[in-house]
Amino acid sequence: DLLTAIENHFSSGSENKPLAGRHVIITSGPTHEPIDPVRYIANRSSGKQGCELAMAAAKLGADVTLVSGPVSIADPPGVRVVRVTTAKEMLEAVEAALPADIAIFAAAVADWRVAAPSVSKIKKSASNAPPALSLAENPDILKAIAQRSKGRPALVVGFAAETHDVLVHAKKKLKSKGADWIVANDVSPQTGIMGGDRNTVHLLTSAGVESWPEMTKADVAAKIVERAAKHLASLKRAAAE
Amino acid sequence: DLLTAIENHFSSGSENKPLAGRHVIITSGPTHEPIDPVRYIANRSSGKQGCELAMAAAKLGADVTLVSGPVSIADPPGVRVVRVTTAKEMLEAVEAALPADIAIFAAAVADWRVAAPSVSKIKKSASNAPPALSLAENPDILKAIAQRSKGRPALVVGFAAETHDVLVHAKKKLKSKGADWIVANDVSPQTGIMGGDRNTVHLLTSAGVESWPEMTKADVAAKIVERAAKHLASLKRAAAE
Repeated sequence: DLLTAIENHFSSGSENKPLAGRHVIITSGPTHEPIDPVRYIANRSSGKQGCELAMAAAKLGADVTLVSGPVSIADPPGVRVVRVTTAKEMLEAVEAALPADIAIFAAAVADWRVAAPSVSKIKKSASNAPPALSLAENPDILKAIAQRSKGRPALVVGFAAETHDVLVHAKKKLKSKGADWIVANDVSPQTGIMGGDRNTVHLLTSAGVESWPEMTKADVAAKIVERAAKHLASLKRAAAE
Repeated sequence: DLLTAIENHFSSGSENKPLAGRHVIITSGPTHEPIDPVRYIANRSSGKQGCELAMAAAKLGADVTLVSGPVSIADPPGVRVVRVTTAKEMLEAVEAALPADIAIFAAAVADWRVAAPSVSKIKKSASNAPPALSLAENPDILKAIAQRSKGRPALVVGFAAETHDVLVHAKKKLKSKGADWIVANDVSPQTGIMGGDRNTVHLLTSAGVESWPEMTKADVAAKIVERAAKHLASLKRAAAE
């Protein structure tokens, strides 16, 4: 928006804007996988953490593409927003947005879709037998981008939202997906994280696990994006040496 | 809210308030049926038509209970709102709100729920085989209330959202559920009705089918509620004769 554009124009010191000239792709929100025109399978996600990440990256000067599933929160200002519905559409939108320096996959992507969605509303049968829902595996967006041989972003960050054995699953994910970092959190209903404004996360990198205290989703976003900016700068220095 | 309360207080002529002293129950929005703590099955529904019905009934003086599934629109003013998630919870909330003079079931209730939702997040298996989702039939809220032997509201109105053979399905529904009226509409994606502000409906009663022109959801709501008020008045006159 205009205010953000003006703000960015008049404060373009590279100290304040360590991500100036960098392209950051962020995915956010749930995906909806259609069963028929009126029914779908979804993951719970408000899109708040992804929205905060996009604003935090824009604040550090980045050119940001936010690929968002269906959410009811407003689009963040100063950011290019691409709205999608399904996991397939989300992967296509991410690939279309490449190249990028940083990719942060904060969306709660449905692992499965209905193999053959009905083009018309499924009616209850006379016998009232429920329909058999045959599921198919969705593309793994984090893995697809992290394991690209060409055009892989320099820093690829995944999210792991778990309800049990959070660190066990997150460590496995860091290894199996080829991501550089995993941000892991416990989204059990009693935590209030899903839909809420606060978050308690662990950052997993090749160096180990950092467990951050509970803070607002805005503060989590600022910390992740600052770390990402420092990481990019260190890669640049390493390449120059 | 206060303004509505003041407005109602100072304009309580029975001509303007034909539903004064009447209790109207309205269901609205989708239901979400959990697969596990982070995934669910849902019906598409913005809750706009149900919200407009609640406001229209309150405007005619009714005491309104709005039983709403998860929606992102604001609660309407001057109305008692009960928030629920699943079809089972919606039926319980409607039963708890009885007795009522009118019940209008505008919610897009999921016909099926997952038979045994997982208490923890289902992980992708090593083989990556999708989980088998075993579905069970949800309670039929319209039928349950329309066919009550005791405490049946004098007027029971159902909605039929279809994508094909709209009138065929709606006539069948009017008969099989025991409803007095069915409001039927074509919610195919190309109509823009789902999530939109306009609606094109057919009113099915024992007297036949009326096809109304396209109008706003607020106008559809006003027309339905005015008709319902007239119907109640005619029942009262018939009982007095």
